Amino acid sequence: MIPLNDRGLLLGDGLFETLLALDGQVRHVEAHLDRMAAGCIALGLPALDRDLALGLVLAAPGEAGLTAGRAAVRLTLTAGSGGRGLDRPEAPACVLLASCAPAPPAGAPARAVVASVRRNEGSPASRLKTLSYLDNVLARREARAAGADEALMLNNQGHLACASAGNLFWLEGETLSTPALDCGVLAGLARGRILAAAEGLGLEAREVRVGPEALAGAVFLTNSLTGVRPLVRLDGRDLGEDPRLAALAVAAG
Amino acid sequence: MIPLNDRGLLLGDGLFETLLALDGQVRHVEAHLDRMAAGCIALGLPALDRDLALGLVLAAPGEAGLTAGRAAVRLTLTAGSGGRGLDRPEAPACVLLASCAPAPPAGAPARAVVASVRRNEGSPASRLKTLSYLDNVLARREARAAGADEALMLNNQGHLACASAGNLFWLEGETLSTPALDCGVLAGLARGRILAAAEGLGLEAREVRVGPEALAGAVFLTNSLTGVRPLVRLDGRDLGEDPRLAALAVAAG
Repeated sequence: MIPLNDRGLLLGDGLFETLLALDGQVRHVEAHLDRMAAGCIALGLPALDRDLALGLVLAAPGEAGLTAGRAAVRLTLTAGSGGRGLDRPEAPACVLLASCAPAPPAGAPARAVVASVRRNEGSPASRLKTLSYLDNVLARREARAAGADEALMLNNQGHLACASAGNLFWLEGETLSTPALDCGVLAGLARGRILAAAEGLGLEAREVRVGPEALAGAVFLTNSLTGVRPLVRLDGRDLGEDPRLAALAVAAG
Repeated sequence: MIPLNDRGLLLGDGLFETLLALDGQVRHVEAHLDRMAAGCIALGLPALDRDLALGLVLAAPGEAGLTAGRAAVRLTLTAGSGGRGLDRPEAPACVLLASCAPAPPAGAPARAVVASVRRNEGSPASRLKTLSYLDNVLARREARAAGADEALMLNNQGHLACASAGNLFWLEGETLSTPALDCGVLAGLARGRILAAAEGLGLEAREVRVGPEALAGAVFLTNSLTGVRPLVRLDGRDLGEDPRLAALAVAAG
């Protein structure tokens, strides 16, 4: 339980991370803590208590009895209680929480639609996993209402940004494209690993600012929990496959 | 206390209202409940339990011992617990909470800066008081860091939208201007009362899509708690006063 005056609850003032655990072993823990620590700086919150966060994350699968198979650990940081309206207190006392639940399977093909809800490229929060995630909830709702699994989100310039819970890539010829971070894109950890691996796989990686008409070749989504997820259908149109996604999935993991 | 798996806490999935209470009497209760009920529809949440919300709001000042003077009642609605990641459960069980705190004074002159954080005009959430309010927190932080009281927010088109906690107006000659709702503007209740009263005060009200260079005459902010607040300074520049703001403050109340 958390107090009713917590700023995470009242204002979405905080951050989260979602980590994959395989047989109780949490993956890429330091990278996730690095990102949350950077998020604290970006939001003007006190420095992340890494020791506390690490302990919570590592203990979460065992405490939930999920030490076999795939599990998702969620680490939540709130700005704590206090302050007056929007103004934080002088010295926020952040709250850290962790939980663990069964994780969805990796690599499941997805059908997507382009959502009407836009990403806010003009806010630093669009590059972070914050507790103000309602736009993503609304985009996902649009996808479900259309019988799809995921929503692609454009920003207010009409440029591709990301999915409601994942980064977006497309592979055509030897070119691997993904929206640039300043399109309002979370700096996904799987995204970063794929970009780092591209050259070694003979691909030229490009971070681009383009509309949905630029999507071509094999389109896929990435996140820490489900790895590389091929898009098989977008707004009712069938999309192509590419055998090279298998190697990219290994790079993402 | 609220459960750790509440979607309001985890994802900012919910709504709030802030109501003014004078000597224990809550003002404009039905209008606030109407707006929250409309927000539930916009977000795809179950219908607001108006009887429960009304009871919570009316009881809040007394339960907080704030039945003399000015108090602020906050009504919070969360999408409740459950679902998987972004997806809500089939039948969300929303949670309603109310609290009450001393209210800031009405009509205090404010100094403002134009914030770098933008409003997301491409999301319906920008027209609602949602629990995903981090952009407003960040804009207010910019104002405080600059020694100001409030932040004016532009949208991604560069058009004026609102303040971090209030609507924006300016009065020049017989013309009263305010940003149009599709600029990413909360449909403020005090804003609505002022627009409705303008003609009777001999003013022509206009809802506009313009950049900050269009600000002229007497600039002021409105919200339910602090009424009409004249802006005396913007980005280091002194702004004009106008005796007609007194009549507008009565209309806003």
